[in-house]
Amino acid sequence: MDAVLRQSKAMCPFLKKASPATLRALSTSTRPQTSSPCGGTISKLQLLGQRCPVMGKALAIQSARVGRTPMAGAATMSGIRSYSSQTKQGRAKIHTSRSHEARPVDTSVFNARESVQFPPSVPVNRKANAATPSAKLSSSDGKFDYNGFYDAELDKKHKDKSYRYFNNINRLAKEFPQAHGASREDRVTVWCSNDYLGMGRNPQVLQQMHETLEEYGAGAGGTRNISGHNKHAVELEGTIAKLHAKEAALVFSSCYVANDATLATLGSKLPECVILSDSLNHASMIQGIRHSGTKKMVFKHNDLEDLEAKLASLPLHVPKIIAFESVYSMCGSIGPIEGICDLADKYGAITFLDEVHAVGMYGPKGAGVAEHLDFEAHKQGRPEGTIMDRIDIITGTLGKAYGCVGGYIAGSAKLVDMIRSLAPGFIFTTSLPPATMAGARAAIEYQMEYNNDRRLQQLHTRAVKEAFDAKDIPVIPNPSHIVPLLVGNAELAKQASDMLLNDYQIYVQSINYPTVPVGQERLRITPTPGHTKKYRDELVAAVDQIWTKLGLKRTSQWAAEGGFIGVGESGVNAPEPLWTDEQLGIDQKLAKEIKESKPANGFMETLLERENLDRGVSATA
Amino acid sequence: MDAVLRQSKAMCPFLKKASPATLRALSTSTRPQTSSPCGGTISKLQLLGQRCPVMGKALAIQSARVGRTPMAGAATMSGIRSYSSQTKQGRAKIHTSRSHEARPVDTSVFNARESVQFPPSVPVNRKANAATPSAKLSSSDGKFDYNGFYDAELDKKHKDKSYRYFNNINRLAKEFPQAHGASREDRVTVWCSNDYLGMGRNPQVLQQMHETLEEYGAGAGGTRNISGHNKHAVELEGTIAKLHAKEAALVFSSCYVANDATLATLGSKLPECVILSDSLNHASMIQGIRHSGTKKMVFKHNDLEDLEAKLASLPLHVPKIIAFESVYSMCGSIGPIEGICDLADKYGAITFLDEVHAVGMYGPKGAGVAEHLDFEAHKQGRPEGTIMDRIDIITGTLGKAYGCVGGYIAGSAKLVDMIRSLAPGFIFTTSLPPATMAGARAAIEYQMEYNNDRRLQQLHTRAVKEAFDAKDIPVIPNPSHIVPLLVGNAELAKQASDMLLNDYQIYVQSINYPTVPVGQERLRITPTPGHTKKYRDELVAAVDQIWTKLGLKRTSQWAAEGGFIGVGESGVNAPEPLWTDEQLGIDQKLAKEIKESKPANGFMETLLERENLDRGVSATA
Repeated sequence: MDAVLRQSKAMCPFLKKASPATLRALSTSTRPQTSSPCGGTISKLQLLGQRCPVMGKALAIQSARVGRTPMAGAATMSGIRSYSSQTKQGRAKIHTSRSHEARPVDTSVFNARESVQFPPSVPVNRKANAATPSAKLSSSDGKFDYNGFYDAELDKKHKDKSYRYFNNINRLAKEFPQAHGASREDRVTVWCSNDYLGMGRNPQVLQQMHETLEEYGAGAGGTRNISGHNKHAVELEGTIAKLHAKEAALVFSSCYVANDATLATLGSKLPECVILSDSLNHASMIQGIRHSGTKKMVFKHNDLEDLEAKLASLPLHVPKIIAFESVYSMCGSIGPIEGICDLADKYGAITFLDEVHAVGMYGPKGAGVAEHLDFEAHKQGRPEGTIMDRIDIITGTLGKAYGCVGGYIAGSAKLVDMIRSLAPGFIFTTSLPPATMAGARAAIEYQMEYNNDRRLQQLHTRAVKEAFDAKDIPVIPNPSHIVPLLVGNAELAKQASDMLLNDYQIYVQSINYPTVPVGQERLRITPTPGHTKKYRDELVAAVDQIWTKLGLKRTSQWAAEGGFIGVGESGVNAPEPLWTDEQLGIDQKLAKEIKESKPANGFMETLLERENLDRGVSATA
Repeated sequence: MDAVLRQSKAMCPFLKKASPATLRALSTSTRPQTSSPCGGTISKLQLLGQRCPVMGKALAIQSARVGRTPMAGAATMSGIRSYSSQTKQGRAKIHTSRSHEARPVDTSVFNARESVQFPPSVPVNRKANAATPSAKLSSSDGKFDYNGFYDAELDKKHKDKSYRYFNNINRLAKEFPQAHGASREDRVTVWCSNDYLGMGRNPQVLQQMHETLEEYGAGAGGTRNISGHNKHAVELEGTIAKLHAKEAALVFSSCYVANDATLATLGSKLPECVILSDSLNHASMIQGIRHSGTKKMVFKHNDLEDLEAKLASLPLHVPKIIAFESVYSMCGSIGPIEGICDLADKYGAITFLDEVHAVGMYGPKGAGVAEHLDFEAHKQGRPEGTIMDRIDIITGTLGKAYGCVGGYIAGSAKLVDMIRSLAPGFIFTTSLPPATMAGARAAIEYQMEYNNDRRLQQLHTRAVKEAFDAKDIPVIPNPSHIVPLLVGNAELAKQASDMLLNDYQIYVQSINYPTVPVGQERLRITPTPGHTKKYRDELVAAVDQIWTKLGLKRTSQWAAEGGFIGVGESGVNAPEPLWTDEQLGIDQKLAKEIKESKPANGFMETLLERENLDRGVSATA
C-alpha cells in the first residue's frame, strides 16, 4: 500500500474504515452486464468511487483530460491497481486539435514584449519533443525550420512503430476475394476488407453504375445546392429512409463527414448541450464532439450503469445526446442499444447510433443491429415501437457492406432538414457522383430483398472463429462478424501481417495505434460470403504457423496471465452470436447430430459441408 | 460627428490633432493594389489604425469576434463611416462551432447548485432566439423539447430567407450542357455547374471509369491503411504531384476534407503556429483553422499591405501559414500569389494555396493560376523557381474542372507524409472508389495534354460578360472564368433563379447567405466549352427580361449609388482577364479589324464566329 493510498485514507471516511482485504476484494472486476468484450468490465471499487461526491467529479474531469475511461483513472488515483482488463486499455488518441479553439492573435503580446523570447512557452531553439535531439526548429536565418519539424514528427512515428506503410492491394471484381498486388500477376487473398458482402462486385450494382455513368456522367458537378442535387440523391435518400423506417435521410461524402458534421452541428446549436460518448467511439464521432465545442462526458464502453450515473448527474431539461455504435469495428463488441434507448427516454436524451459496420449485415433487411433486435417485427414490416424506431439518429456508410462510398444520417424530417440547412460539411462540398449514388441504392435495395449474403457471412465467421479456437489462436471474443486476433505488440503485429502477405499471399492488415490503444495491437480478419473452405483452411494454417514462428501468445498463454480484453479471461463465457441459429436457418436436429459425432473437421465446417452452404458467392453473382 | 468620435478624440493624440476635413479625406478608400473586385479596398484611416498600438490590437480581437475584416471594424469603432465597399461586406458566417472546444463536464456545477437554474446562462424556458415566440424548449415533462428546437432553427432560416430549396437537376452526359428536371422529359440548360470543362462527360474519362469499374468493382473496400490502398491511388497521386511539379500528393474524400484536415493538422502540430487567412477564404479552410485550435489572423481580401502588417507583427521564428485561394469562386477575384510568396519568404511563413476553382482551368497544363503566372516556363517543362514551385502546399479538387469527385494536397514529400500519418480525416475514412480515382487521373492527364477546353471556356466567358455589359446587367468584374451577376437581395435572387428555371428552362442557382454575405446575393454563372452561341443568346435575353420584370438594379443604377463591390464603381477599371489574348491565340490583326467595324453582334461573338471557334465541345467529344 503506497503513499497515495495512505494519503487517501487520511482524507476519506470510507477508505479509513476499509481493511486491505476489503479493498483488494473490491478491486476485482465485476462481470460485464452487457456484451462488451472490449473492456466493458468495471471494478467494484470503481463503482463505489463513481458514487462518491468527491471522487466522482474528479474522475470525470480526469477522464476527459487523459482521454481514458474515468473508472480506470479512479483505480490509479486511489493508488489501487485494478485487475480488470480496463486498466490496460487507454483510449486511442486522435491526432490534431488542441484543447482549445482557434483564437485571434493578441499582437500586443508580441509588440509589448519584443525583448521576451517567443512563444513564451516554447524556447526558440527547443528540441522537437526530444525525438530528434538534433532537429532545431529555427534555421540559421532565424525563421522556423518547417522541414526539420516534419522530420521530427515522422521520426516520432517511426520510433513508436506507429508509422504506416500502405499495402498496394487491387481487389479484383471477377476474382473476389482475391486481389493483385503492385504487379498484376501477383495474387493475394484479401481477408481484411470492409466490403463485407462483396457488394463491390455485385453484378446488379455494377450494371446500375455503368448505366448511370453512361447517362449522367462522371461527377455531380456541384454542391447539393448548386447543380449537384438530382434524382439519384433523392432516390438514395428515400431508400435509406425506408431502410431505417425513418422520415428522412441525408447523404454525405463519407460517414466520417456525416458523424463529424452532425455531432458538431447538433452539439453547437442545442443550448448548453451535453454529449455522452462511449469510450470506444470512432474517431469521426470524437472529432464531431470536439468540433461542436459543447460539453462532453465519456462513459465506459457499453456500460449502462456508468452511462446512467452520468445522465443522472445532469438536470432533466438539459439537452443531451448519447453517441454510440452498434458494432465496434476493431473488437466486434455490440452496443446495448435497447438499454441506451431506455436511459435516453428516462433522462430526456436523444440517441445517435453509428451503424457503420452493421448496415447490410444485420436485420431481416440489412438495416443494422437495431433492426436485428426486432427481427420478426421488421421482417413483417412493422417498425412501429421497435428499438430502431426509438433511435433518433442512425448513421451509416455506403462504403462497407454496400460496397461503394459515402455516408448518411437518417432520422426525423425536421432533424434532417436542420442538419441539411446548417452543417458546413454538408453544404460546402461537391455531391457524390450520380453513379455512386445509384450503385449504393441498388446495393441497399438488393440487400433489403435478399439476406443470404449476410447469412453466409455469419456462417463463415463462425467457422473461422471455431477453427482459430481449435488452434488456441486468441480471437477477441465478440458476438459479431469481426474476427480480431490479439497480438499485443505493434512490431509483432506488423511482422505477422507482412509474413502473411509475403509468405502466404494472404492480406490481413495489422491494426496498431492510433486505431487501437497501444498494447492491444491485433490482426483484424473479416470473412465474407466469398471466403470458401479453401480460403479458410489456408488462412487458419498460415496464422497458426506464424503464431509459432513469431512466438506470439496463444489463448492459453493469455489465460495463464489472467486474461486480457476478453481473451483467456476465466469465468467469461464467449458472447452468443447476434445472429441466432434459428435466424441463420441452422437445422437443430442436424446440428445436434453433427455435434455428437465430434467431427475432426470441426462443427461449423461439417455443417457447412452437410448443408451444402459453402457456395461462396451469392446466387446472382 | 457622434459621441464615439468625440470620446475617441479625447483619448487619441492623433484624432485630437486631426481636423474633420482630414478625417473625411482619410475615410475614402484607397485603390486596391491587387485585383480584388470583391471588396479589397481599404480606407487610409484604416491603414493608419492598423499601425496604431492601441487600435491595432483591439481591431484584431474585434475582427475575429464579429467575423469581419478588422479594418471594417476600425471605421465603425472610431465612429467614422467608411465609404469603401468594404463596410457593406460582412464575412459570410459559417454555421456550427462555438468559440471554444469541447470540454469535460464539471458535474459539481450541477451537483452543487441544484437549486440554481441550469444552465446559468440559459433560462429553462427560454424562447428560441425570439424567432418563434411560442416554441418552448422544455416540454411539459421537464425534458428538453428537441422538435421544438429543430422547428425554431428552421424557422429562422425561413424568416431570413436563407432556407434552401434544392433544384432537381440531372445533367445529361450526351446532351451537355443540358439536364432533365424531376421529369425525364423536361430539359433545362445548366449555367451554374462547376463541371467547368464538361469533363464529367468526356469520353476518355468515361471509358477509363467503365473499365476500372468492371475490373476492380464499385468501392475501395477500406481505408487507405486497411485494404483501400491500390494502384489507382498511387497513380492518381503520382499524376497530381507531376501536375503541380511537387514531390508528392495525397488524395482525400473531397477538398473540403483536404483543407479541413490539412490546416487542422498543421495548425495543431506546429508549435504556437499562427495561421493568416484571407477574409474571403472558403468554409473548409475556415473550419480547418478553427479545428486546429491555433492562433489565426484574418487579413483583408487580397490585401498584401494588410497581410504584411500582420506578418510583421509576429516574431520571425514563429511558424506561420498563409492560407488563401487562387480563384475566389463566388466573385471570381484572383489572389496575388507572387506577392504572397514574397511575403512568406521575407517573414518565414509557408503558403497554403487553394486552387480548387483553378485546376484544369489555368496554365499550359491546367495546374492552376500559380502555373498560369509562368505560362511559358511551364509550357517548356521548366518549373524550377516558378511561382508554383515556391508554393508550399497546393490543394485542389477532382470534382469541378476534372468532372469527378475528391480533393487533394500537393507539396514536399515530408509534408505530405506527415499529413498522411497524422490527419484523422485522411486516416479514418474509406478511400475513393478505384473508378473515381482512375477517371480523375484520366481527366487530369487529358487536360495536361490538351488545352482547348479551357481556352474555349475563357472565350465563352468573355462573350457572356461582354453581352451582359452591353445590356447594362451588373457583372461583378473579375479576371477569371466566373460570371457573378449582382442582385443584392436574397428573395429577389431566388425569384430571378426560379423565373429563369420555370419560364426559360435555364438553371442558374441563386447564391445567398451563408455562401455570400447578406446584401451581396447574386446569380453565379459558369460558362463551359459547351455553351455555344445559341445558349449564350438565350441566357442573355432571359436575364435581361427578368432584370426588367423584377426591377433589379442595372450597372448604371449601382453606379449612380456610388458602386458596390466593384459594380459601377467609378475610376475602377475592369481587371484584365488572366488569360491574355496571346495565350488564347486571338489574332490581333483580326481583333483590331473587328473592333473597328463595331459589329452589332458584339466583338467577342463576331470573333468567335470569324475564327470558327464556336464548336462547342472538345475535338474528342
